[in-house]
Amino acid sequence: MRALMLILDGLGDRQSKKLNWKTPLEAARTSNLDKAAKTGETGVMYTIAPGIIPGSDTAHLALFGYDPVVSYAGRGYYEALGAGLAVNEKDIALRTNFATVEGRVLVDRRAGRNDFLLDDIAKDINGMKIDGVKFLFKHTVEHRGALVLRGRGLSPAVSDNDPHKTGEPPKKVLPLINDEKAKRTANVLNAFLKEVSILLKDHPANKKRIARGIPPANTLLLRGPGQAKQIEPITKIYNISADCVAGGALYKGVAKAVGMRVLNVKGATGDKRTNLEAKVEAATSSKADLVFMHVKATDSFSHDKDPQGKKKFIEKVDKAIKPIFKEFDLVFVSGDHTTSSVLGEHVSDPLPILVWGDRKLVRADPGRFNETKMVLGQHRVVGVNIMPILMSKIEKIEKFGE
Amino acid sequence: MRALMLILDGLGDRQSKKLNWKTPLEAARTSNLDKAAKTGETGVMYTIAPGIIPGSDTAHLALFGYDPVVSYAGRGYYEALGAGLAVNEKDIALRTNFATVEGRVLVDRRAGRNDFLLDDIAKDINGMKIDGVKFLFKHTVEHRGALVLRGRGLSPAVSDNDPHKTGEPPKKVLPLINDEKAKRTANVLNAFLKEVSILLKDHPANKKRIARGIPPANTLLLRGPGQAKQIEPITKIYNISADCVAGGALYKGVAKAVGMRVLNVKGATGDKRTNLEAKVEAATSSKADLVFMHVKATDSFSHDKDPQGKKKFIEKVDKAIKPIFKEFDLVFVSGDHTTSSVLGEHVSDPLPILVWGDRKLVRADPGRFNETKMVLGQHRVVGVNIMPILMSKIEKIEKFGE
Repeated sequence: MRALMLILDGLGDRQSKKLNWKTPLEAARTSNLDKAAKTGETGVMYTIAPGIIPGSDTAHLALFGYDPVVSYAGRGYYEALGAGLAVNEKDIALRTNFATVEGRVLVDRRAGRNDFLLDDIAKDINGMKIDGVKFLFKHTVEHRGALVLRGRGLSPAVSDNDPHKTGEPPKKVLPLINDEKAKRTANVLNAFLKEVSILLKDHPANKKRIARGIPPANTLLLRGPGQAKQIEPITKIYNISADCVAGGALYKGVAKAVGMRVLNVKGATGDKRTNLEAKVEAATSSKADLVFMHVKATDSFSHDKDPQGKKKFIEKVDKAIKPIFKEFDLVFVSGDHTTSSVLGEHVSDPLPILVWGDRKLVRADPGRFNETKMVLGQHRVVGVNIMPILMSKIEKIEKFGE
Repeated sequence: MRALMLILDGLGDRQSKKLNWKTPLEAARTSNLDKAAKTGETGVMYTIAPGIIPGSDTAHLALFGYDPVVSYAGRGYYEALGAGLAVNEKDIALRTNFATVEGRVLVDRRAGRNDFLLDDIAKDINGMKIDGVKFLFKHTVEHRGALVLRGRGLSPAVSDNDPHKTGEPPKKVLPLINDEKAKRTANVLNAFLKEVSILLKDHPANKKRIARGIPPANTLLLRGPGQAKQIEPITKIYNISADCVAGGALYKGVAKAVGMRVLNVKGATGDKRTNLEAKVEAATSSKADLVFMHVKATDSFSHDKDPQGKKKFIEKVDKAIKPIFKEFDLVFVSGDHTTSSVLGEHVSDPLPILVWGDRKLVRADPGRFNETKMVLGQHRVVGVNIMPILMSKIEKIEKFGE
């Protein structure tokens, strides 16, 4: 039997006046999800725990069955894996933004959110060496990238250089603990940033960007330092094969970290333009026991404070996913966290879950798949409960006791 | 943003015939709470865990976010703090009752529940010394008081002297473990009780009490030995300011123990005559990020097996609290435990919670704020979840992960 875990990022929401005091999921017309919820199992999930605001990385770890308090390795680690960089045991990994400075002052934290020629620039940064440390670098989507430091005596206990606002210079990287490795890592990163600035100041790619009216990518913002963490692969825990269909580097990275195979899907962009049909096609074509399919845009509409856009996108998803109910024996649908489209931020509110399958595998309940009617569902769970629920249904977990 | 935590002591209840098989909270007309519940979040809370009957002290620790299994320091500690006694690191603290003996036999465990001249008596007890141990003593409310032992080689592992019934003599204090400190503490306490009996036998205050027909306060019952426990203050954990509005010494004491500032409120008596309006005024006038407001009488009506009285008192509270919904961004209402007004005792049943706020901060659910309709709420929590839920909403907790 095969199971699909469909995660609509930031799916949970709050009611808003713009939707006549409904949530986007409540307001959306979703005939496929409604039909599935009617014979499926529903309920309420705190992804991590009540009152804890999940990040996307910790939330996905929980959904894959790993306690993030134990297993979380830092955002940079997952971003680097998702970008396709190898991260060895003692490497330090960071997520990066290309950004624009004028003089020393930060004027655009995302270099126009424009990826023109960033691959060229990335190639010149990749392979730099400072004080015995090698820098591996890759551009991913839009202004984003990932950086891996390889060398002796490094630590992830260093601060970001991102001031999180424009009008002032990027910060210096500082050691967060009084430790030689942390100090060395901060020094090496500050030296690296200086060299990058020199390299990018008059870089031909930046000249071309400026000529086109695009802000030059002349500095890097570094965030979320992480380090590889060995965990037991999901494929081994449940003795399954597992494939990932995702656009965003982070989600691919978490999937890789737990031992999933990441499928290459054309048109899976990790943004609002994503080709949902191509992703559904990739998911249904996979032969893996478990397919994890991730859709990012629900979250992006929330961050953009656009509940109507989120509602419409949910309707698009509902149409696109029709084939999955034919191709999979078991389908789990939820989000990784609630993102308020009123506040534009992750919040700690619980979110609805849907476990659909043949009626031999699931038991219908009075719950429905939205933030209001979920309370009538049979499940009250946290994220780490999801994998056992799914795997027990497709007979990948044995009875405990006799 | 500012949050109020309103705890109506022993609010949860069971249905009783006297209320046509409703609970006091179900039977009460509570237009303000009903209105708040309509747009607010509701749910079910076990203060400590299913099947655990909470004491008021352990329950409040949990509501303040501390696991009582780890952080509980013994009732006497909180009573002493609440009475305004300093409790140093190695001190032993106990709660006390003034009681009445005739000959050696206990005839009234509460000395008529009458506080006439007890402050005078307390002053004469305060400062006594036995075998290098100094006794600090303070009368609080009605027949109650708190005692602190200061000296070398003391232990809280000693028994109570309260036989919990009349008609027999108070018990001897015994060491609970085979330990020199426990033995010394028991010896010192028995000697203290003897000296107190001698002091009070013909004390002028008791002569005046007898002349007025009030039972003399001629002995002390000692209970709940505790010892200071260092915990991280609530103000530091969440980087907030926190004020307490309460009448009863215990609640002030727990609030102090977790680092809250206790406001002096005239008319906050910690009993059925409490001035609710004065407390609401004090709470709304506070500028703290978190205000904890405690109302005791709901519990007292339950202990007195008076569900109708409890219902009426809940209606009084509902009227009095109207201003809080204007003055606070976020309001949490619940009890610390369920107290059956049929049995007159704390029971382990879960109780309803209400989280009300601006609709940007909360998500309405179909639940209502009583023991029956709470099941339609979105939350299923234990007490230690409450602070994270509240603090994440008023942005005092950061995202876990990115």
